[in-house]
Amino acid sequence: MFTRRTLLTGAAAMAVASVGRAALAAAPEPAYPGGPNTEVPKAPSTGRPFNPVVTLNGWSAPWRMNNGWKEFHLVAEPVVREMAPGMKANLWGYNGQSPGPTIEAVEGDKVRFFVTNKLPEHTTIHWHGILLPSGMDGVGGLTQPQIPVGKTYVYEFELTKSGTFMYHPHADEMVQMAMGMMGLFIVHPRDANQHRVDRDFAFLINAYDIEPGSYTPKIATMTEFNLWGWNSRVFPGIDPLVIAKGDRVRIRMGNLTMTNHPIHLHGYDFEVTGTDGGWVKESARWPEVTTDIPVGAMRAIEFTANAPGDWAFHCHKSHHTMGPMGHSVPTMIGVDHRGLARRMVTLVPDFMTMGERGMADMGGMEMPLPENTLPMMTGTGPFGPIEMGGMFTVAKVRDGLRRGDFADPGWYDHPKGTVAYELKA
Amino acid sequence: MFTRRTLLTGAAAMAVASVGRAALAAAPEPAYPGGPNTEVPKAPSTGRPFNPVVTLNGWSAPWRMNNGWKEFHLVAEPVVREMAPGMKANLWGYNGQSPGPTIEAVEGDKVRFFVTNKLPEHTTIHWHGILLPSGMDGVGGLTQPQIPVGKTYVYEFELTKSGTFMYHPHADEMVQMAMGMMGLFIVHPRDANQHRVDRDFAFLINAYDIEPGSYTPKIATMTEFNLWGWNSRVFPGIDPLVIAKGDRVRIRMGNLTMTNHPIHLHGYDFEVTGTDGGWVKESARWPEVTTDIPVGAMRAIEFTANAPGDWAFHCHKSHHTMGPMGHSVPTMIGVDHRGLARRMVTLVPDFMTMGERGMADMGGMEMPLPENTLPMMTGTGPFGPIEMGGMFTVAKVRDGLRRGDFADPGWYDHPKGTVAYELKA
Amino acid sequence: MFTRRTLLTGAAAMAVASVGRAALAAAPEPAYPGGPNTEVPKAPSTGRPFNPVVTLNGWSAPWRMNNGWKEFHLVAEPVVREMAPGMKANLWGYNGQSPGPTIEAVEGDKVRFFVTNKLPEHTTIHWHGILLPSGMDGVGGLTQPQIPVGKTYVYEFELTKSGTFMYHPHADEMVQMAMGMMGLFIVHPRDANQHRVDRDFAFLINAYDIEPGSYTPKIATMTEFNLWGWNSRVFPGIDPLVIAKGDRVRIRMGNLTMTNHPIHLHGYDFEVTGTDGGWVKESARWPEVTTDIPVGAMRAIEFTANAPGDWAFHCHKSHHTMGPMGHSVPTMIGVDHRGLARRMVTLVPDFMTMGERGMADMGGMEMPLPENTLPMMTGTGPFGPIEMGGMFTVAKVRDGLRRGDFADPGWYDHPKGTVAYELKA
Repeated sequence: MFTRRTLLTGAAAMAVASVGRAALAAAPEPAYPGGPNTEVPKAPSTGRPFNPVVTLNGWSAPWRMNNGWKEFHLVAEPVVREMAPGMKANLWGYNGQSPGPTIEAVEGDKVRFFVTNKLPEHTTIHWHGILLPSGMDGVGGLTQPQIPVGKTYVYEFELTKSGTFMYHPHADEMVQMAMGMMGLFIVHPRDANQHRVDRDFAFLINAYDIEPGSYTPKIATMTEFNLWGWNSRVFPGIDPLVIAKGDRVRIRMGNLTMTNHPIHLHGYDFEVTGTDGGWVKESARWPEVTTDIPVGAMRAIEFTANAPGDWAFHCHKSHHTMGPMGHSVPTMIGVDHRGLARRMVTLVPDFMTMGERGMADMGGMEMPLPENTLPMMTGTGPFGPIEMGGMFTVAKVRDGLRRGDFADPGWYDHPKGTVAYELKA
Repeated sequence: MFTRRTLLTGAAAMAVASVGRAALAAAPEPAYPGGPNTEVPKAPSTGRPFNPVVTLNGWSAPWRMNNGWKEFHLVAEPVVREMAPGMKANLWGYNGQSPGPTIEAVEGDKVRFFVTNKLPEHTTIHWHGILLPSGMDGVGGLTQPQIPVGKTYVYEFELTKSGTFMYHPHADEMVQMAMGMMGLFIVHPRDANQHRVDRDFAFLINAYDIEPGSYTPKIATMTEFNLWGWNSRVFPGIDPLVIAKGDRVRIRMGNLTMTNHPIHLHGYDFEVTGTDGGWVKESARWPEVTTDIPVGAMRAIEFTANAPGDWAFHCHKSHHTMGPMGHSVPTMIGVDHRGLARRMVTLVPDFMTMGERGMADMGGMEMPLPENTLPMMTGTGPFGPIEMGGMFTVAKVRDGLRRGDFADPGWYDHPKGTVAYELKA
Repeated sequence: MFTRRTLLTGAAAMAVASVGRAALAAAPEPAYPGGPNTEVPKAPSTGRPFNPVVTLNGWSAPWRMNNGWKEFHLVAEPVVREMAPGMKANLWGYNGQSPGPTIEAVEGDKVRFFVTNKLPEHTTIHWHGILLPSGMDGVGGLTQPQIPVGKTYVYEFELTKSGTFMYHPHADEMVQMAMGMMGLFIVHPRDANQHRVDRDFAFLINAYDIEPGSYTPKIATMTEFNLWGWNSRVFPGIDPLVIAKGDRVRIRMGNLTMTNHPIHLHGYDFEVTGTDGGWVKESARWPEVTTDIPVGAMRAIEFTANAPGDWAFHCHKSHHTMGPMGHSVPTMIGVDHRGLARRMVTLVPDFMTMGERGMADMGGMEMPLPENTLPMMTGTGPFGPIEMGGMFTVAKVRDGLRRGDFADPGWYDHPKGTVAYELKA
């Protein structure tokens, strides 16, 4: 966990020597993840027991128990995020990744966060949804001084209720969130059997505007983003939700983009059972197949996975399952331009044309793309290209999986007699 | 129903000869609508009884009973849609129109869909909200091969719950939905008295970006659409909701655009009683006058029509009740340009200027428009121009209408003493 | 209240001489506010008793009792609104301000509105959410003739239910709302103890697109507004919500922009207890920390203020807490341009550059701005710049405030031991 890189770049944080209060020792070592894939967390070995969440393409932060306090160390810093195989982005995040590690703790826990600022500008952390003293709320200028470059700041508070929360800066907020600074904060119930589910997934929804061929998001973009992601990953870079048939499943999602995302699950109806305000009582729940997640809000949905199969799970705004494209492209539908496109691509390397028969033939066109660019609508299933990108993955519901088994089971083998069939023309 | 045009263009579908399974006979003849006006459906003569919905400016598909299966035939194809008198669009749809016909069936029905692809590219159909086997889910590449051009594909499944659903492609999805491919799928309760209402309206919300003077939508547009419609129609081309005083009324709406649409009803408060996830229990319902319909979601609202009158019913995003306009137009408010506008229009045919007194004088300006262009804010009521376009119609609540009577009753005759009046200056 | 300015500009309205009905006397004198700050209303001295709301940076309209009717006079007219100190806008509103005065009345009241049109074009008023006869609904062309320039129109109806409503034109609607024409309409319960709270705040959410250096909104803007406000004010021009510890608090908000606004409160969870459709029953309420307010909808939230402090309260779409900026600005993160920015500003007065270290250093740059332009991210707290603008204010919860005391108590003095602290590097 504590890699050479951490040792080198963590020098400033490690130089902590004199402390503000007697009770405070040096910050714990910050943890770094192994890579962009989902790290399935183990049950905790210290502190109160809980059933950990599975952060899609993310991981959970370890902690140190110190005299009754759970201590975490978050390092705000520039990171390189692989958004999908073939494309990396220069983002800002925590502990080497964007999003930062998921914080998991238990109702009643006393938590302490050492926050080291290795960004080129000041920052803070706001604990979105957590009830805490005003001085711990992390609003730079209002409830605390900004954390200067190179300094470490400490937050401490007691967790008074369980639920699905998040953390992000409240300092130069538009820039820092547009650059990827955010993380999940899960507070488990004191009674581990309360709100218990068999599989508990979690991710944050985020969006970037990175021009094809470049690496750094444009942070002033308001509406026309081109990389719509979950945990700073885009399909086919998002891991599947692997689920055993019969499992009770929860998916927790928070939105830190600039628009609502209507997240749609195939094959099931579900209920929203929690928000960043707490648990939704049974009498107030609606049946849904799409939950519209507002900006700055979180939704936990639940369903029982009684239908096996490969079930699409995606944002229903269709541009958000596309991937990078130019938005000033005229429609060529009805215009025969076979040959033209290939010639244009030779002359103008970033030329992309919409097919006069729609865009389904894009996948087959061998267009030279700028380096570090994801083609539109990538991702292949058992029957060929799925023609999706961005906010898309698959809930894979299978017989015979065991608790803790999250390994990709491959594609669903449709039973004979249930697969549709083609008539001869 | 089976017109000459169908016979001609339906040749490929009719050529179906060899079938994949013994139980499968040739596809039933596809049905085509008579025109863009609302076709009020009759009670079904075969299969389980139900109270049909009224699809605004649409119609319901007939079916054939075949050995216990309800068989429908959907033909995916380019269509010409009259969006309002004076403006036609080249869209893609089903069975000659966009949206396609409303599918109406009953909880417990076994349904079979023959889907013939006459588009210039491959397609599929996803049955949004329906619980069915994974292989019938219609996600191209993931749960089935794409339906090639010229081929017919068959879906079959049993309807396990009632509610308000829809169908649309899950193949080159952004393009195919932006071109108008969608339809309603209503599953009536097994018990026709459950969730019973007197009038049951239904439509889908869609948006197009068609430049003034052109016919084909630009399919890469993400936010700045200029034709905001219901069932690919815009006011004054949307039929009124004709309602008898005292009726229990349901309006079912689904959204396949790229943004939320807050649909507002005057004169009443209402409750959302259903979504594409099912029926909302009584304890969970909110009183509303505006329901915000997320993308990829459906809402059924209900109210009792006890207040007679002409009640506006529209999207509350004011640009969505405008119609085509240029969005780079500067404000002329405060600048006297009388005369200038008329001279500019002579020089530059597509010049439109905002009045320095607002835009209410637009209706009176005899500006030459490009052909196939709807002027902004058209539609006239009993007191003159209503200054609305796009997602707008009128709920006409009247005494003395009978069940099944949906003929436009004309404008409401306000009783003396309830009409406001003007003071002499 | 009745100022010299009113007497001069109100001449046309005062010229009312002959009336349409015998029962109708001349319109009451229209009231004008004292300035852009919150005017805390007093308990009513005529009519039924109620607990008045506090309109943020607004005021409530006085009325005249006339033979059992509550009479109000609204004057539609161009206004100058100070959006924050240092920036004024040429808007359209009512009675000298945008928004117009809050209407407060009681369930069962008979209300009469004299509406005088001093705009350069015709108008109407629609009473959003109020149940009333069709002829009083205020839809120009549909339920009444437009109110011509210079004329006064009368609406009268009985208030049949309590709740949170609003008024706005339904005539050249996009222009007139984009210019600021709107106001709150609060109907208090007949029983003043029903739905009673200790502090009852109210405001409308609105957005403008006013280019830096200019004064008049561009009324064709659909998505990229640059002034996101509450009651046509932007932070730091929005008054704080001053609250006594232990108070039951309600905040009523309506949205008349073109997009959802997810309004987020720090330090508390809350419930939505009312919409413009009525009161939400207890069984249907969700716990939230962010409520997503749709366009054309209203939400009343409630919480008990048991946590003292300075709690940020803002829209969670981060551009909406920015203030004016150019959106075509490239990211300079990673590019060292120290010196360059200051030289560019000298050459090009409206040049703004994003820092290569983020934008937090914007506050420190002494850039010459065009006149009548608000810098981005202004507003200063006890610990320096808060780096927020637009839809942001602070809920100041304090011990020892008395009922009716809304004076700004200054910044919260964090108790020792609860303030975070900085480690020495």
